[in-house]
Amino acid sequence: MSQGTSKAESLRAGETEQSHVLSIPVQDQVPDRPPHGYERWLLSKLLRMAGSPPVRFELWNGERVEPENGQPRFTLRLTDPKALYQLVGNPNLAFGDLYASGRLQVDGDLPDLMTALYRAVHGARQGWPKWLEALWRNHNPRSTGLNEARQNIHHHYDLGNEFYQLWLDEAEMQYTCAYFESPDLTLEQAQLAKLEHVCRKLRLRPGQTVVEAGCGWGGLARYMAREYGVRVHAYNISKEQIAFARAEARRQELDHLIDYVEDDYRNIEGQYDAFVSVGMLEHVGKENYGELAAIIRRSLKPDGMALLHSIGRNRPMLMNAWIEKRIFPGAYPPSIGEFMGICEEGEFSVLDVENLRLHYARTLEHWMERFEANRDRVTELYDEHFTRAWRMYLAGSIAAFRAGSLQLFQVVFTHGENNNLAHNRGHLYQTPAAPEAG
Amino acid sequence: MSQGTSKAESLRAGETEQSHVLSIPVQDQVPDRPPHGYERWLLSKLLRMAGSPPVRFELWNGERVEPENGQPRFTLRLTDPKALYQLVGNPNLAFGDLYASGRLQVDGDLPDLMTALYRAVHGARQGWPKWLEALWRNHNPRSTGLNEARQNIHHHYDLGNEFYQLWLDEAEMQYTCAYFESPDLTLEQAQLAKLEHVCRKLRLRPGQTVVEAGCGWGGLARYMAREYGVRVHAYNISKEQIAFARAEARRQELDHLIDYVEDDYRNIEGQYDAFVSVGMLEHVGKENYGELAAIIRRSLKPDGMALLHSIGRNRPMLMNAWIEKRIFPGAYPPSIGEFMGICEEGEFSVLDVENLRLHYARTLEHWMERFEANRDRVTELYDEHFTRAWRMYLAGSIAAFRAGSLQLFQVVFTHGENNNLAHNRGHLYQTPAAPEAG
Repeated sequence: MSQGTSKAESLRAGETEQSHVLSIPVQDQVPDRPPHGYERWLLSKLLRMAGSPPVRFELWNGERVEPENGQPRFTLRLTDPKALYQLVGNPNLAFGDLYASGRLQVDGDLPDLMTALYRAVHGARQGWPKWLEALWRNHNPRSTGLNEARQNIHHHYDLGNEFYQLWLDEAEMQYTCAYFESPDLTLEQAQLAKLEHVCRKLRLRPGQTVVEAGCGWGGLARYMAREYGVRVHAYNISKEQIAFARAEARRQELDHLIDYVEDDYRNIEGQYDAFVSVGMLEHVGKENYGELAAIIRRSLKPDGMALLHSIGRNRPMLMNAWIEKRIFPGAYPPSIGEFMGICEEGEFSVLDVENLRLHYARTLEHWMERFEANRDRVTELYDEHFTRAWRMYLAGSIAAFRAGSLQLFQVVFTHGENNNLAHNRGHLYQTPAAPEAG
Repeated sequence: MSQGTSKAESLRAGETEQSHVLSIPVQDQVPDRPPHGYERWLLSKLLRMAGSPPVRFELWNGERVEPENGQPRFTLRLTDPKALYQLVGNPNLAFGDLYASGRLQVDGDLPDLMTALYRAVHGARQGWPKWLEALWRNHNPRSTGLNEARQNIHHHYDLGNEFYQLWLDEAEMQYTCAYFESPDLTLEQAQLAKLEHVCRKLRLRPGQTVVEAGCGWGGLARYMAREYGVRVHAYNISKEQIAFARAEARRQELDHLIDYVEDDYRNIEGQYDAFVSVGMLEHVGKENYGELAAIIRRSLKPDGMALLHSIGRNRPMLMNAWIEKRIFPGAYPPSIGEFMGICEEGEFSVLDVENLRLHYARTLEHWMERFEANRDRVTELYDEHFTRAWRMYLAGSIAAFRAGSLQLFQVVFTHGENNNLAHNRGHLYQTPAAPEAG
């Protein structure tokens, strides 16, 4: 509980110790004064620069600033003048902060609003003058050196297992994109289908050895051991996740097949038939891609198969500033070209790339529905600010995947000399990857 | 016939008009003098630098230079001292030239020899000193501007339809990688399977419009029109191929659905449901990738699908000098990262990448078998030099795909905002892509 509280505090803007995070004093008193004319002008200018989304502003005195064209589908309420200036000065960062602190309130479906904003801004930003790009640009993500990586991962993944259990799937606590091979799957089915899809892509056979970099709560390792009879070394630097993973492996009597190692992927030792990493590359940092390639290269047997599953981009772009600062420190999703650069660096042969972008939107919709159903408990564990911040994070992520701002790449590759390859990919589709419902 | 002869002549080293091609005078008289000690030393040094492949040299007087380690599986006979110096001075270029002119003769299976050489050199070249890398490096490929592209393509694809009919498949004259979804398919089945696989990846529906960049003899366009009822605009700058394609479309009564356009892909006009290009990107040239991306971007409807099928690389590397100079002027297979750079440039979302490397090795084995069965006719059409050069080209290509020096990427992508995507890739595998044999 004390941990939960401390995390909630670090989320609250202006109360963090990290000096590079903007300090935003929370303003409790709503001012009586009416907005100035130039304040209304600033907001309508902001709407135009954002590509004229179907959004109106409502100010602290009830006055409204309507969009230029068409009917607004959403109303954004600003509770004080300072919120207005913060929003105009750095919308990337301030939008999430103001929402989390309740100084920006939303009428309308939050994921839909965020999707409309992503789409409008994407179309508009080509026309931005350089100074505006510079003013609003995302800041550089934090370092991902060995020590910083521990802090970054602790910040997010050690929020407490109970918190994640409130809204992740009950099957294997997967905090990564599920595989909705058909859209009507339950979240549990789709997460198991993802694990199965990954195993099929790796062409696992009983008795093989697998190393996993960044194993979360250990669900993939347990699935591989249970369903494919392989031995797994699974690395993670999140203390809480490793503890959970070990306990769960013991409970399922799989601990003789799985070695959960509380260590950084950079310390992986040995050679394996498969190298797999699901949802870690986002946290590796561009500056470490060369080292990651070398690690995979030395860890993979001559005919071993590797799979990296990661959020990515169509073009290089920094992580949304608010998410990088408040939610995922150090996060950077690689562009598809940067992703392939890892494979080039390791002299690997890329065999298969699959983009599961809309699967992540669907996954996040499930998560958000469960999160909302448990929001009172979340607020009890942390506080209202935390709950609103996570709601914004989930809604914004849904929007980013829907609007095509984020992608989800699964990339299969092997050593350049390996000729032990499948004739085709039909083995992925002979039977459904998802188990029957129930 | 006169065309065939002129092409054969341009292939013959030393008789070409192109000033940047090395001039190698053909030496007809075999010298009587025995090799010098330092000549034998040069050859054993060459073998060591090439990673000690299982190869011995036999010199003009019958003397042998054995490899350092192990039993030689192949014997390379050099007919004169000048051949020795040419080989040592620039093995990349001279190996093919000497083989074509008969001054380097091979005992042993040519594709197997070339595979052994590719593998040995790949392992060894990391240890080469810089000066050797510089001495032996591939030269820059020729330009691929609008005019040069016409010359480049004419050089290769206008050799005469009869020549290609001697060894390509009889189904659709496909001069690109087939899809051996099972390895026992005939060449005809595997080429039709490739066309079907491409159509499935594009999710074609009747009444849609397709633009094809670089249509060869028009087989894919006819397949799409015939099997999927789509309208196709197919571009090609090879006069002979376009003439063949048009005649064949009329014969099959498909000409109302297909417009074969004798023009450069850079002049594509209109918007289409699909953009497809099979085996053209190799000839586009890196300097034109940005323009290609812009062309695809403007030619593709908002929910259109694009597919590029091309030879590629695991890392950036120039085309083998001999192939670029003698066989495929201007050819450059992009690395997977450079390939993705095209998609980044066009702000596309990459949906699917499949590597069919070993399928191309198998395709080339079929081609070479048919080529050898018809070698007398080839020599009749051209001459012995031409036949030997093409044998080397086919054998070297088999080796490059077997050894992993070349890849074959099929890349499917769409506009970044397009959400009209398949739930999974199972539709590619519900039924075999190949027709029944017969």
